[in-house]
Amino acid sequence: MREDRLLPADPGTRAVARRLYEAVRDLPIISPHGHVDPGMLLEDAPFTDPTALFITPDHYVTRLLHAGGIGLDRLGVGEGPLTERASRDAWRLLCENWRLLRGTPVRYWLETEFEDIFGITERPSAANADVLYDLIADRRARPRELLARFGIDFLATTDDPADDLAPHAALAGAVRTRIAPTFRPDAYLEPARPGWAGRIERLAAAAGTDIADYKGYLAALENRRRHFIAHGAVSADHSHADARAEPVDNPDRLFQRALTGDITEAEGTAFRRHMMLEMARMSSEDGLVMTLHPGIHRNHHPATFERYGADTGHDIPTTVEFTRALAPLLARHGTDPGFHLVLFTVDATVYSREIAPLAGFYPSVYAGVPWWFLDNPAAIRHFQESVTEIAGFSRLSGFIDDTRALCSIPARHDMSRRLDAGYLAGLVRTHRLDEDEALDTLTALVTDQPRKVFKL
Amino acid sequence: MREDRLLPADPGTRAVARRLYEAVRDLPIISPHGHVDPGMLLEDAPFTDPTALFITPDHYVTRLLHAGGIGLDRLGVGEGPLTERASRDAWRLLCENWRLLRGTPVRYWLETEFEDIFGITERPSAANADVLYDLIADRRARPRELLARFGIDFLATTDDPADDLAPHAALAGAVRTRIAPTFRPDAYLEPARPGWAGRIERLAAAAGTDIADYKGYLAALENRRRHFIAHGAVSADHSHADARAEPVDNPDRLFQRALTGDITEAEGTAFRRHMMLEMARMSSEDGLVMTLHPGIHRNHHPATFERYGADTGHDIPTTVEFTRALAPLLARHGTDPGFHLVLFTVDATVYSREIAPLAGFYPSVYAGVPWWFLDNPAAIRHFQESVTEIAGFSRLSGFIDDTRALCSIPARHDMSRRLDAGYLAGLVRTHRLDEDEALDTLTALVTDQPRKVFKL
Amino acid sequence: MREDRLLPADPGTRAVARRLYEAVRDLPIISPHGHVDPGMLLEDAPFTDPTALFITPDHYVTRLLHAGGIGLDRLGVGEGPLTERASRDAWRLLCENWRLLRGTPVRYWLETEFEDIFGITERPSAANADVLYDLIADRRARPRELLARFGIDFLATTDDPADDLAPHAALAGAVRTRIAPTFRPDAYLEPARPGWAGRIERLAAAAGTDIADYKGYLAALENRRRHFIAHGAVSADHSHADARAEPVDNPDRLFQRALTGDITEAEGTAFRRHMMLEMARMSSEDGLVMTLHPGIHRNHHPATFERYGADTGHDIPTTVEFTRALAPLLARHGTDPGFHLVLFTVDATVYSREIAPLAGFYPSVYAGVPWWFLDNPAAIRHFQESVTEIAGFSRLSGFIDDTRALCSIPARHDMSRRLDAGYLAGLVRTHRLDEDEALDTLTALVTDQPRKVFKL
Repeated sequence: MREDRLLPADPGTRAVARRLYEAVRDLPIISPHGHVDPGMLLEDAPFTDPTALFITPDHYVTRLLHAGGIGLDRLGVGEGPLTERASRDAWRLLCENWRLLRGTPVRYWLETEFEDIFGITERPSAANADVLYDLIADRRARPRELLARFGIDFLATTDDPADDLAPHAALAGAVRTRIAPTFRPDAYLEPARPGWAGRIERLAAAAGTDIADYKGYLAALENRRRHFIAHGAVSADHSHADARAEPVDNPDRLFQRALTGDITEAEGTAFRRHMMLEMARMSSEDGLVMTLHPGIHRNHHPATFERYGADTGHDIPTTVEFTRALAPLLARHGTDPGFHLVLFTVDATVYSREIAPLAGFYPSVYAGVPWWFLDNPAAIRHFQESVTEIAGFSRLSGFIDDTRALCSIPARHDMSRRLDAGYLAGLVRTHRLDEDEALDTLTALVTDQPRKVFKL
Repeated sequence: MREDRLLPADPGTRAVARRLYEAVRDLPIISPHGHVDPGMLLEDAPFTDPTALFITPDHYVTRLLHAGGIGLDRLGVGEGPLTERASRDAWRLLCENWRLLRGTPVRYWLETEFEDIFGITERPSAANADVLYDLIADRRARPRELLARFGIDFLATTDDPADDLAPHAALAGAVRTRIAPTFRPDAYLEPARPGWAGRIERLAAAAGTDIADYKGYLAALENRRRHFIAHGAVSADHSHADARAEPVDNPDRLFQRALTGDITEAEGTAFRRHMMLEMARMSSEDGLVMTLHPGIHRNHHPATFERYGADTGHDIPTTVEFTRALAPLLARHGTDPGFHLVLFTVDATVYSREIAPLAGFYPSVYAGVPWWFLDNPAAIRHFQESVTEIAGFSRLSGFIDDTRALCSIPARHDMSRRLDAGYLAGLVRTHRLDEDEALDTLTALVTDQPRKVFKL
Repeated sequence: MREDRLLPADPGTRAVARRLYEAVRDLPIISPHGHVDPGMLLEDAPFTDPTALFITPDHYVTRLLHAGGIGLDRLGVGEGPLTERASRDAWRLLCENWRLLRGTPVRYWLETEFEDIFGITERPSAANADVLYDLIADRRARPRELLARFGIDFLATTDDPADDLAPHAALAGAVRTRIAPTFRPDAYLEPARPGWAGRIERLAAAAGTDIADYKGYLAALENRRRHFIAHGAVSADHSHADARAEPVDNPDRLFQRALTGDITEAEGTAFRRHMMLEMARMSSEDGLVMTLHPGIHRNHHPATFERYGADTGHDIPTTVEFTRALAPLLARHGTDPGFHLVLFTVDATVYSREIAPLAGFYPSVYAGVPWWFLDNPAAIRHFQESVTEIAGFSRLSGFIDDTRALCSIPARHDMSRRLDAGYLAGLVRTHRLDEDEALDTLTALVTDQPRKVFKL
């Protein structure tokens, strides 16, 4: 694999970028938000199925193959454990259609993972599909071994508020990486979504209380946040259709109607927007960092959702607004000491137009780095330029990998380090920053900044 | 003319780009969407009027001169055939005001055309205006000779559903280029626009049926699509104020009211959105590729529209939304085998935020390349980066020139090939693609991909 | 300070850029819009307080420090003249936190100012804060001396319509720079904002008339515009929540209700949108260039506004629309001879999607250059590419510094000249422009174009 990949093409700039990158390439990985399954880490079974490792659970990969005409059924999505035959067939489809990934970061990450973890440097193809399959399967890599090898200091998972977090507790002494849960209450804040009563029951059971009214509901949420904090959580993560936060006059009335199922879509939305203010208040009080990433049209293709479930590649971004939406929340908590609000978006224009100016004034607001559809080199460069030049480096969250693919974590962080090195090298070469400052900034972005923002 | 124009400035990247470009520069031109007049090709009269060739019909040129203070009347817009005196005067205005075109692709295309077709390498000016005029007029270029010389394999025109397509039939054996009509039914789908009854009459006459109700209307549209397909059409093209596709409960009721002229603006819009679903259904059934490019505020300046008509340079983009708008259409037809939906926009942010993610999941959806206001090198590079890195190269339509200026076709395709070569060279130089893959990708973009997407 | 700062990294392109930049670096400065206090120029007291010179009045600087956790009180915002102790403390905070400015244009401007005006080349830090303080204070620079030294030919201030403009009159013969007022009537066009009756009284007093009705109100505005023109004004500047211009049927009814305070928010907005048409009419008649920059959510943080007032760093951009909004205004005045409408935005996507196409057709419309949150190198490059390639260079306003920090004027113009030189050099290196054209274009952007657009 080429040493200089992703570094700027201009030789003078590349030389600076290379020096900067070398200085941080081996620093530990801080991963404050992602979707690795803690049960998998607890079980620590060896990976013997390349398809289960690289394809089936990763909608980054499956959506590109699906767009290329390969049905999700042929990739084993939603099928549970695959037979070796089915797994080999799916793997062969990836290798045969390798060209579908050209130009995407998915290709880049996979290539990095193949080489770094499995020593594979050949380009996948129909011809070598089975050989590569065997190479990966025979390696029998184990999750915890990879965690250690990747140098991951901190790894956050994403968890249901009613989760007992037993895997986290069990892992606490067992691995050197700190594995922290993340409080993700979306479903518990949207009362018009089907199944509300059941969710409230589960929440009550987990909190060990009754939830008879709005007050009891708030208390249960606060209780679960304390449980998460006791298990090492540092943040609460929120993703709704929009970013609005607005009080309602009588939340208890809406709460009661929700319990009986007699609540309209609009009322449910009003309640959820009200709860965003409450979530900010709780974060301000208990210290959990609040992360926000609205503006996704989820499960765009109903037939795929019905057959294969959520997170199968058809969550599609749309426009989203932050400036007006967050005004009430920031009026209340924008300068609260210790309150941290990290804003993400998949509408790239919002980063420069709204998030950077907000982060460039409010001490509580940090610009979350580009992720999901924006985690490619071009989108990252656009982010670097448009956010940094408005808000400075100190207002960034540091890199977030947001991945459910364990093996892709170091590849993603490495991409980020290379691109940050390249961007900073450009500032040095145009005399906007001295090289010692660039090095200091890069080191901060990789370790100090995420530690500060996520209070590690 | 300089060999390396538009190629990346960095010498290492430029060397790769040059190799890539050389390999595709002479490949045939596939032009699946444009506005060349088929009657002109049939008639094949020599071009003796440089103004009629380069200025009057081309709103790309006239709008820039108009913005510079030159009234459209002085350019002969809307005047019919010009006297030589008027033509020379208009031509002189272009040459004298050549600096107004600096930095625009219009200047680049004209420069390329002047040199490649007419051997002109001097910069136009007041001093040489008449000499250049004579050079071009004396060349007496004929449309079909240019078609052949340009190496155009496939050329689509844009046509009214009631058109008999006689020129296409007559040209079928006469030229080596395949000249195909395109079904463009916009006016036949918007019942609140003046003249609806007359249009429906013309449609009925063309289809040889009566249109008494909604059912008859659908049948007539289907009939005309078959007529177009019989004359070689491969696509149906749609441009409305928005991209929304939504069913109405009783389309026949709206259709009846439209026939009597008793339909509101809002009802007309509802009917049109309903018809987008029908158009998708028809495309899914008869195989015509569906192309969509909404979001233009047409005829922005009423006084100019009244005096000079449509397409005179004041169609102005505005915001447009695809994700929510197309959800019902893609729920129905998004995975239909053989259904192709090519999405264009002049709101550049939509390409990365919405179109690329849609094309990166739905096998039917292709990202149409940037055109119109986005057909300049910077917008094209932005598109390359932001769309490719999300959806990969295989989800692109290939280049679309969308021009009514015959002579600009090779210049536009050449610009595209150079920019694609440059972008791919950048991927090679940052080790994201091997050079053999880049070459394969470039060749696909130029010929294989448009052939596949437009089913040639 | 490095000679080549901000010039392109590619050596070949940089060489061209350097030649272009050298040719314009010492041309006079034209500043057609800004916020320098004319009273300060009249008084011409020496600057003995570095904090008052560089920090307190400049929300560019204070917002970045505030985001970094430094309260505005510690920076002396809203405190009036500071004691030397307080001033030194605030200055020290800037120097200690110098790293907060990395990557921002604020850092670049300050660095330029420190070296060019005060000979300071050291990087500010806790260690040298007091030495730098003394260096700046001891220089005892005077405003008029700086004006002359900076080579400012034309400087526009921003003024209240009721202002007598006495400082401008007094300065007329006293300095070589032409100091022109700018008519800024925002508050006089928004009748639902508190204090309307008082404002109308002040307007009447200034105009020397009674304002009993809408007609009298229009006459008073016209009168004040004449007063401004008599004092050298060349433009009227407008910034409202949106860009809409729409007639109301009975403006006098709304005006009467406003006088009694009995007007709703919505009616106030309707009246303001109506008045935008009137403002365009007046500009068309009296020749004042109309500048427009809507789309800011002002005073986002109420607590900060209440304690420190407006312009304290929390005006946050949001989305804005021009195409539909301005259609009625441009239908009436878009081709009026002598009418100039300069459009600015802080929603960068609007420049390419809407403003450039409008400026590329209407002879009255000019694309104002990027400012405020868009005045950084990356945003400026994005603007250059996306606007120029649609509308050409001749549709640009030339650089606007929009600053209230006198010392930053030459630094900002220098940044612009460097970036324009770099962009043009790129066009030369990719063979899109000859070098003589690039030089001619750059000179025009620096002097001829602003002189033409602002009728100097």
